[in-house]
Amino acid sequence: PGKMKGRKARWSVRSSDMSNKTFNPLRAIVDSVKVKPNPDKTTISLSIGDPTVFGNLPTDPEVTQALKDALDSGKYNGYAPSIGYLSTREEVASYYHCPEAPLEAKDVILTSGCSQAIELCLAVLANPGQNILVPRPGFFLYRTLAESMGIEVKLYNLLPEKSWEIDLKHLESLIDEKTACLVVNNPSNPCGSVYSRNHLQKILAVATRQCVPILADEIYGNMVFSDSKFEPLATLSSNVPILSCGGLSKRWLVPGWRLGWILIHDRRDIFGNEIRDGLVKLSQRILGPCTLVQGALKSILRRTPQEFYHNTLRFLKTNADLCYGALAAIPGLRPIRPCGAMYLMVGIEMEHFPEFENDVEFTERLVAEQSVHCLPASCFEYSNFFRVVITVPEVMMLEACSRIQEFCEQHYQCAEGTQEECDK
Amino acid sequence: PGKMKGRKARWSVRSSDMSNKTFNPLRAIVDSVKVKPNPDKTTISLSIGDPTVFGNLPTDPEVTQALKDALDSGKYNGYAPSIGYLSTREEVASYYHCPEAPLEAKDVILTSGCSQAIELCLAVLANPGQNILVPRPGFFLYRTLAESMGIEVKLYNLLPEKSWEIDLKHLESLIDEKTACLVVNNPSNPCGSVYSRNHLQKILAVATRQCVPILADEIYGNMVFSDSKFEPLATLSSNVPILSCGGLSKRWLVPGWRLGWILIHDRRDIFGNEIRDGLVKLSQRILGPCTLVQGALKSILRRTPQEFYHNTLRFLKTNADLCYGALAAIPGLRPIRPCGAMYLMVGIEMEHFPEFENDVEFTERLVAEQSVHCLPASCFEYSNFFRVVITVPEVMMLEACSRIQEFCEQHYQCAEGTQEECDK
Ligand SMILES: Cc1ncc(COP(=O)(O)O)c(C=O)c1O
Ligand SMILES: Cc1ncc(COP(=O)(O)O)c(C=O)c1O
Repeated sequence: PGKMKGRKARWSVRSSDMSNKTFNPLRAIVDSVKVKPNPDKTTISLSIGDPTVFGNLPTDPEVTQALKDALDSGKYNGYAPSIGYLSTREEVASYYHCPEAPLEAKDVILTSGCSQAIELCLAVLANPGQNILVPRPGFFLYRTLAESMGIEVKLYNLLPEKSWEIDLKHLESLIDEKTACLVVNNPSNPCGSVYSRNHLQKILAVATRQCVPILADEIYGNMVFSDSKFEPLATLSSNVPILSCGGLSKRWLVPGWRLGWILIHDRRDIFGNEIRDGLVKLSQRILGPCTLVQGALKSILRRTPQEFYHNTLRFLKTNADLCYGALAAIPGLRPIRPCGAMYLMVGIEMEHFPEFENDVEFTERLVAEQSVHCLPASCFEYSNFFRVVITVPEVMMLEACSRIQEFCEQHYQCAEGTQEECDK
Repeated sequence: PGKMKGRKARWSVRSSDMSNKTFNPLRAIVDSVKVKPNPDKTTISLSIGDPTVFGNLPTDPEVTQALKDALDSGKYNGYAPSIGYLSTREEVASYYHCPEAPLEAKDVILTSGCSQAIELCLAVLANPGQNILVPRPGFFLYRTLAESMGIEVKLYNLLPEKSWEIDLKHLESLIDEKTACLVVNNPSNPCGSVYSRNHLQKILAVATRQCVPILADEIYGNMVFSDSKFEPLATLSSNVPILSCGGLSKRWLVPGWRLGWILIHDRRDIFGNEIRDGLVKLSQRILGPCTLVQGALKSILRRTPQEFYHNTLRFLKTNADLCYGALAAIPGLRPIRPCGAMYLMVGIEMEHFPEFENDVEFTERLVAEQSVHCLPASCFEYSNFFRVVITVPEVMMLEACSRIQEFCEQHYQCAEGTQEECDK
């Protein structure tokens, strides 16, 4: 009704569409769970993706010392450039530089955690109405961020029977003119999968054919067990423009410190100045990560002993084996063996648990009866699986597995028509 | 042309509209300045709003000790809730609580600097197409953030002759049906002004009449000279819903640490759960500020000695007087005496400097001839003024003032028709 000016009749303050669209499926699912843990059993949480909560995985003393030194120097209290100190960006660049994927300071943007790295990448690459391709099952933040910006999310399938490799046909079928980027998360949350060089090359081939840039979420980079190898995506391609997102959160076990980064790989100058400038401009909105952590980064990267990384991985591998072994022996469950990161996905043969409608109900009842918390795969836009976090202390892991076993035994039922198999 | 699917012809990656719209006037103006400082004079920068750059204003030892303690405790390496630790929010609430404007933990959201506090407030209050009211001259970030989100910015005038009070008539005339919020910055960057209780009440009266919520940017809260009093806006109203933004950056002299907050004042329940939930949801995008700084906040707020605040303010007041005195004596300049914050605005009687087209050229030539950097008011959407930062060491301040004097004397010309006055 035309231009209305002047006095409003009354107070009416509504939250914006953007905030309404900022949807966190985890919160929606977890908060709606009404069940209480079994009061007779201590609660064991295998649901929190924070490796620090149990105290069994402290960061390395060199990491805390580096921060202390940065603090004592008195040099890191003022504003840094919004994309981070030049010296810190140089350090990150030289740490991740390799001949196949060279990096300089200008290719690095420091962010407030890997979360903000992903936010900036999506914000610079996609307009409202465009779409991004995201793994299913996958980390919920991609959708949360994309939808808040009016960017459509298309889910491409991962194949549990192929250790969660991407269904490349399905992936390629989803690409259209409006596809702004392909998100590849390797190693994966929630799957714990690590892609082979060969598979990564096939993913790159799709991107090359379809001319789609890649956001490589490599926050779990290098966090792979001894029998696997982590290949940074950018080292395998010289033409696909790639924004690789990483940070201190996982490998250095300090997620609260909120230091992340974007590594810009663009050897064919396809992103060009436009994307680089766009990232710089977007970084000016909140002015970069905490300067103390930036100041500490040089020492953190240089002085953290190899032993620290090895010990973390050895612990994770032991727990993964232990958990995989225990759960694989439980009728009705089908864990998928992880090769890295901090998670393991467990398939539920729902036909053997007819009492439960789905993975959400399964995990709810697991809380109610056994006080064991796991996230249902619904949190990752998948179904009939649940995710186990393998950073918990070994005894807890064992106790949890035996409670899951008890739970499954109590609810397992022979599926119709498979009586025979059941009797074995 | 209908739904286009399948293979793209060629690589074409463009930066998003959002990043293109993320415009930083400061960068645009400052980066386009081509002049070099005078090689015969050391550079003096009165342009950087970072109180730490000269080393003369270190933070208090209690502040660094608090951070060290947080680090040593080992308790603050993991993820905090995205709006901040409950205990830290409780502490902020009780620090800013007062009978006229009560606060509890649920009214506090911790952010990555005051910048992110402002970002979240604008993002939750306004939709694209709505508008916000912003002071002129004023801090550029309001526009940068708003325009990147498609929110229109309307500038209301501040009156230099009334110590930068708001032109309330002008303000009220700008309000329309699409006005989502009124931004009030007190104490002010770039003006150094501090509003009286009486003026603040008049601002609140406008908000009440027009039913417009307020974003109070109080990052310079309590940073007022002895002859002024800082009145938190929320303490003067029981009906206007107010989001007050603040943080550690200025008063505690650690802008790089990136800890800010939003205080939600909503005693009539006008924001209601919708705005609160919206802020929580938006905070989940990047998961809050550095946990170490959060962990240190309790001690910082409790143990920083009053002396520290007093010393900072005494220093700023001395420098302000010194700078005001020196510049007020220079023909052609009209500084406005500041009462707080860290800045002073200086009017340029352009008619006496006909060589220069505007404030940008004036400050450019000041760099070229005297190697003194000041920001032209154009950076704050104003004109014929420049801003002086008063955190620099006293000798530098004096030297800068005498160079500005030399510069002005060399370029001052009697305005036509005022020969007489000039001869005095
Ligand atoms: C796959 C993935 N990407 C990004 C992140 C966010 O990392 P940060 O805590 O550094 O923001 C996480 C955190 O769990 C993750 O699992
Ligand atoms: C008026 C005003 N608001 C907000 C900010 C941003 O503060 P922070 O560094 O905490 O993000 C500044 C910084 O200069 C400012 O002057």
